[in-house]
Order: sequence, then C-alpha cells, then structure tokens
Amino acid sequence: MDESAGHKISIEPVARVRSPFQEKFGIPRQPGLAPSAIGEVRLLAPYHDAAMLQGLEGFSHVWLTFRFDRCVAQGWRPRVRPPRLGGNTEVGVWASRAPFRPNFLGLSAVRLLQVVTRPEPLLRVSGLDLLDGTPVFDIKPYLPYADAIADAEGGFAPTAPKAGWPVVFGAQAEADLEGVAAAAAGLRCLIGEVLALDPRPAYRQGGEPGRVYGMRLDGYDVRWRVMGDRIEVQAVQAVDPV
Amino acid sequence: MDESAGHKISIEPVARVRSPFQEKFGIPRQPGLAPSAIGEVRLLAPYHDAAMLQGLEGFSHVWLTFRFDRCVAQGWRPRVRPPRLGGNTEVGVWASRAPFRPNFLGLSAVRLLQVVTRPEPLLRVSGLDLLDGTPVFDIKPYLPYADAIADAEGGFAPTAPKAGWPVVFGAQAEADLEGVAAAAAGLRCLIGEVLALDPRPAYRQGGEPGRVYGMRLDGYDVRWRVMGDRIEVQAVQAVDPV
Repeated sequence: MDESAGHKISIEPVARVRSPFQEKFGIPRQPGLAPSAIGEVRLLAPYHDAAMLQGLEGFSHVWLTFRFDRCVAQGWRPRVRPPRLGGNTEVGVWASRAPFRPNFLGLSAVRLLQVVTRPEPLLRVSGLDLLDGTPVFDIKPYLPYADAIADAEGGFAPTAPKAGWPVVFGAQAEADLEGVAAAAAGLRCLIGEVLALDPRPAYRQGGEPGRVYGMRLDGYDVRWRVMGDRIEVQAVQAVDPV
Repeated sequence: MDESAGHKISIEPVARVRSPFQEKFGIPRQPGLAPSAIGEVRLLAPYHDAAMLQGLEGFSHVWLTFRFDRCVAQGWRPRVRPPRLGGNTEVGVWASRAPFRPNFLGLSAVRLLQVVTRPEPLLRVSGLDLLDGTPVFDIKPYLPYADAIADAEGGFAPTAPKAGWPVVFGAQAEADLEGVAAAAAGLRCLIGEVLALDPRPAYRQGGEPGRVYGMRLDGYDVRWRVMGDRIEVQAVQAVDPV
C-alpha cells in the first residue's frame, strides 16, 4: 500500500445550493441553528434525475457533502482559532470544522422539507449554514441509528453556541419590514435567529459598542448594532440582485 | 450562477485506513455495528503533522469522508437495491448510502480510541466499516449538538439492522483460535460481531442451507455456514500476507 498522499482524484458537483446567505458574515457556524434558513439543493445535469431521489422523502434529514468554494483561494491552515474558544486559542485543523482545511470539504445535516421532482428536481431544506451557490458533491439520507450517537462527547464544543441575544427591531426596521413582499415573510424570523447567535467575530465581541454592522440576507441589506444587552435591527433594505 | 455540473475539482487523500476488512464481503453496512473492528487512520504527507490533530483527543467520535475506491471501476448507478429492503426493491441512489454513487464519496462516524502523534501521526478508531487501504479526504470532530439529531426519522432504515444471529465456533475453529497470536486476541469478538449481522447477500438469505462461506478478516481466512437458526464458524486460518 502506497503511504504517500498524491493520487489526486477528480470529483464534480452534483447539486448547487440556493441559500439566503449571500455573504459569509452572519452564516450560523453549524446547520440547524437557524431553522428559518430555508433554501434549495438543486440537482445538476447529469445527476438531475428525479428517479435518483425516490425514497428520500421518508427521511427527515439529509447530509450534504460540499466544498467551501469561496475559501479555497485563501488556502488551508494547519492550525485554526475556533470561535468557540473565543477566537484566541489554537487547535489543529482536524479538531475543528473550520473551512480552511485540506480539500475544503464541508459536511452539514439539514432538515428535508420537501423533495421536488418537477419541473427540475431539487430538495427544499431548512437549517442551512451554507453560502448561496455552494457546490454539493454528495447527498445522503441521515440514518439515525448510525449517525445520531447519543453518548458522543464534543471536546471543546460540547453544546450548541448560545443563541441568547434578545433581538429587537427599531422603528425604521419595522417600517422596512412592513413593505417586504409576502415571499419574504420568513425574513423577520431569519434575521432574529441569525442575530441571536451574535455573528460578530469573536475578537470584536465585547468591544466597540454601538458599531453598526451590515449583513446581506435573502436579498436584503440588514443593518444592526449591539445596544447594551440586546441587538437592535436598524434597517432592512432590499438590495438590487447582482 | 452556472447551473450545469462540470467544474470538476481535484482533491487528494489526507489519510489512509488500516482496517481488519480486507475484502468487501463481511463489512458491516454502517459504522459502529462491529465495535471490535479496530483500525487506524494514518495521516499522509503533507498532512501528517501532529499539530493538525491537537484538540481532537477531547472528542469521542470522528467523521471520515472517504472514497469507495474499489467500487469506482464498476461505475455509479441511478437506482440501487438496498439490503434493508431485502435486496429486491429499488430506490434512488440519493436515498441510499450505497457505494455505487456519483463521486463515490462515503461518510462514517467512528469512535476515536486514541490520537497517536509519534512516530507517525494516526488515529486509533473502532467501529470501522471501511475496507483496508481506503483513502480518506477529510477528518472532522463529531459535534453532538449539530450531528446527533435526536428526532430524525430514518425512512426505510429507521433502526439498526438486526445483529441477532447466534454465532457458535466449531471444534476446528476453536482449535484454530487457540493458536492465534495474542495480537489477534480481538479476532474472536470481531468474527462474532461480523457474523451476527449475517453478511450474506440479501438474495441468498433463506436459500442454500449449509453452503460454506469464506471471508478474509484481519489476515485470517474465516470459513462459516448457516446451520438452522445459528451461524457456525468452521475454521480460522492465517493467510500469508500479500
């Protein structure tokens, strides 16, 4: 057996994700943390055959093996500083789910809402933590008996990150949301879930009170700031599609 | 956004598996079903840096993203017949964990027994369901809060396959095991766990009583047959290493 690396293989996307997350900032750091993050996994030719999906509708969740394609240009790192450790303690990249890893492969279990077969086969999913346009290389059913390990121990990330920030909408944000189309009715929930996780980089948490952050979410520019012990949404403006 | 497939990417193995399973026949169909299936995940250059593993020791399980490399030559299939459905009902390949899938990527959560840093970095793991020599493309910690979905529904495979076959060792097999080196002390347990799952192809189950099967396990040729309501191990012979 050859013990060196090398032996590159070639794989190709079988699907592409449509997600409300149109920039990295604000994306929950694991799937399932923002249930209102609803999107689609659109099968790509030659893998867009509805017959390949038959039977999947009985499963509540699916695994997506994807690539952190917008991180590849920056290269991988042997050591990373996980947000869970405050952003200032290093661990090995194999001990983390950081995107800057060899091969840049990611893994997310998302809830399967619906298997759509026509006009084009796709999966409607929720709890997404993926950037819009992310290429998917494999889709598998979540098998509770093999995948849900009840007694697993989670090292330095034993429990979910706190989603504890109260989120309030200021007067301008409320007025903005009044004008949002019915299609974006889930937008308010999504904003609340994403901000409750406090998407600020760890090194900024605790500093710069009042600083205004911007985040693009589902076609809207969301502006918000930390006010004391809560997060205030200031404005929600539609962005012209790129 | 380009909605066609194409855009192949190149990835390379970061590790290689040493496993007691030296042929496909007999491999449990998901990880964790045979706890005595102990092996190693050996990091490959340039990813064999112990610093990349630091912090992983606090996690009880790891995900391995691997390739079913011995299945590639046979090609992928849009529809498969899962053993769980008796081997005669088809489902789409995306609804299965079958190896004959586009890109041939696999996913296994295995128990992490030990992180070894010297002389070469490797992970000692148990509950393997991988063929010896399998190339690994990613290693991630298992995060209970994101990965262990307590309320997930498992479609046509809601529970673990029955590991209900009583396994008995015949006189010759007992004599053979007497002579097995101490290093293979776990061999008896491993044989018992693997056979209790009944590795016969679904289409043979129920037919050909008394037929003798052979299986290579951890360097030994194991011969066994179904006798009524139990499985009898007939012989356990060391195989010359290839």
